[in-house]
Amino acid sequence: MAASCRLKPLSRVAVSGGTHGNEMSGVYLAKHWLRDPMELQRDSFAVTPFLGNPCAIEKCVRYVGRDLNRTFTTEFLSSAEAEDEPYEVVQARKINQTYGPKGSAQAFDFMFDLHNTTANMGSCLIVDSEESLLPMHMCHYIQTHYTRSPCPIYLYKLPGEETYSINSVAKAGLALELGPQPQRVVRADLFAQMRALMACALDFIELFNKGTVFPAFEIEAYKITGLMDYPRYPDGEISAMVHPKLQDKDFLPLNPGDPIFQTFSGEEILYKDDTTIYPAFINEAAYYEKKVAFAKMEKHTFSMPGLQRE
Amino acid sequence: MAASCRLKPLSRVAVSGGTHGNEMSGVYLAKHWLRDPMELQRDSFAVTPFLGNPCAIEKCVRYVGRDLNRTFTTEFLSSAEAEDEPYEVVQARKINQTYGPKGSAQAFDFMFDLHNTTANMGSCLIVDSEESLLPMHMCHYIQTHYTRSPCPIYLYKLPGEETYSINSVAKAGLALELGPQPQRVVRADLFAQMRALMACALDFIELFNKGTVFPAFEIEAYKITGLMDYPRYPDGEISAMVHPKLQDKDFLPLNPGDPIFQTFSGEEILYKDDTTIYPAFINEAAYYEKKVAFAKMEKHTFSMPGLQRE
Repeated sequence: MAASCRLKPLSRVAVSGGTHGNEMSGVYLAKHWLRDPMELQRDSFAVTPFLGNPCAIEKCVRYVGRDLNRTFTTEFLSSAEAEDEPYEVVQARKINQTYGPKGSAQAFDFMFDLHNTTANMGSCLIVDSEESLLPMHMCHYIQTHYTRSPCPIYLYKLPGEETYSINSVAKAGLALELGPQPQRVVRADLFAQMRALMACALDFIELFNKGTVFPAFEIEAYKITGLMDYPRYPDGEISAMVHPKLQDKDFLPLNPGDPIFQTFSGEEILYKDDTTIYPAFINEAAYYEKKVAFAKMEKHTFSMPGLQRE
Repeated sequence: MAASCRLKPLSRVAVSGGTHGNEMSGVYLAKHWLRDPMELQRDSFAVTPFLGNPCAIEKCVRYVGRDLNRTFTTEFLSSAEAEDEPYEVVQARKINQTYGPKGSAQAFDFMFDLHNTTANMGSCLIVDSEESLLPMHMCHYIQTHYTRSPCPIYLYKLPGEETYSINSVAKAGLALELGPQPQRVVRADLFAQMRALMACALDFIELFNKGTVFPAFEIEAYKITGLMDYPRYPDGEISAMVHPKLQDKDFLPLNPGDPIFQTFSGEEILYKDDTTIYPAFINEAAYYEKKVAFAKMEKHTFSMPGLQRE
């Protein structure tokens, strides 16, 4: 990479709340901004708030037919309309028409996406990969200026995988993943954190648009390498829970030989791989059905080039 | 009340897990006991575990058609079968046939019911009222012998109200309400607590059956007096969250003038009544749809007479 990069200023920015309809910080923040968008305005740009999955929000469920935030791939976005396709496929195409199309010059410059997790992930910042320069600079700015809670960076794209998330329809994006918060609950503390993180991120865009030079930096981030399922009985039912010593330990080192599960009968199951990992999304409610007890993460340090506007 | 009471020994005892299908401590405990019921056996009696709401458990939701745990009233139990009635009404009649009928001599002697809440209620013990002598003795025994977490007693019946909960089909009952735990998540720590509480309660029944004399005692308990709704916009949508100073403060005193809500715009809303209360079920996920931000509780001390078997 070059020692410094120049990018166009951002003029069209969107923020989705309720991409998952039962993650309430984003649902209520977006609803609040739709009533009163003032705090989303800056001198050099304005932000368009919207409800990602209105039907799921109405029912207070994650999704109605299929997970919207896994539906922004070529397969779904470019498929012919069918009569019995899931609501979220229709909704994904609408969002792609409004804020994309994905990969095109007309796409929005940036999209934020607001999430909660039942895992103890703090104020987690989710980016597709370390190659996304502007989002990585935004993360660095947030980590420097927002100090109320740790803001680990989670790089979600597996090697060779196509991006599938809602903010992938814009030219760049960032998801906020705040936890722990139960599904269907809004906690005032996490609501305030998400609001402050958004304000901080918008301040960064404003500075960038106005010509601030952001120097090169080194930054730590967690990169996904795979997923861990729960132990199961032969009939497919889970036979164990996340071990109490692993519960709530997101982004902390898990070493070979450490306990990861406890069976309902009381036996310990140990981590068998031969390298240290940094689990995340530990015991996330929505991932039981995805057969994921936690995501396996590696910790990396990346050297990022400087950034300023063209 | 007499200074001491004699009651018949208990021979038929049942325990329901998954009366609400997304409260996972009880769901997985009951499923475990159905595979291996050994730890539910005592010399003088055995316990029958069952899944309260199998259809809701399958879908991992609280209920399918209506809240099962509000369906054990004369209205539903004695209504004629109808074609389009909710699944839970059919299920309530089945449970009433198997473990009741409610109010009859054939009914089971005791029923436990296992719940979780997203509220910070510790190991809460729910009894219909202080007039239920055997359950109150069981609570006292648990508070004395189970010391890993506080076990506040919650008396749920409003004056003049009919009992409506699943364990009201048995001659006596106790519900365990453990939190905080998100819906759809099983935490190993709360699973272990619920299991230990059940073991303690069964030990009490065993001692009672074998002739132990339980002396009179005084006991503190919280009695419900009413419910508090969220503030709302004119369109019915909630306009405020539980205040951060009230969040997680279940069973602690709330005084007139203390903050109870914070609007999405940031204003504080104070508690206006003129007496101190002890809120419970603060910010329970399942109660948003019931228009309940918290239950208003009074703290009482009750003098309970002694107890032994006939």
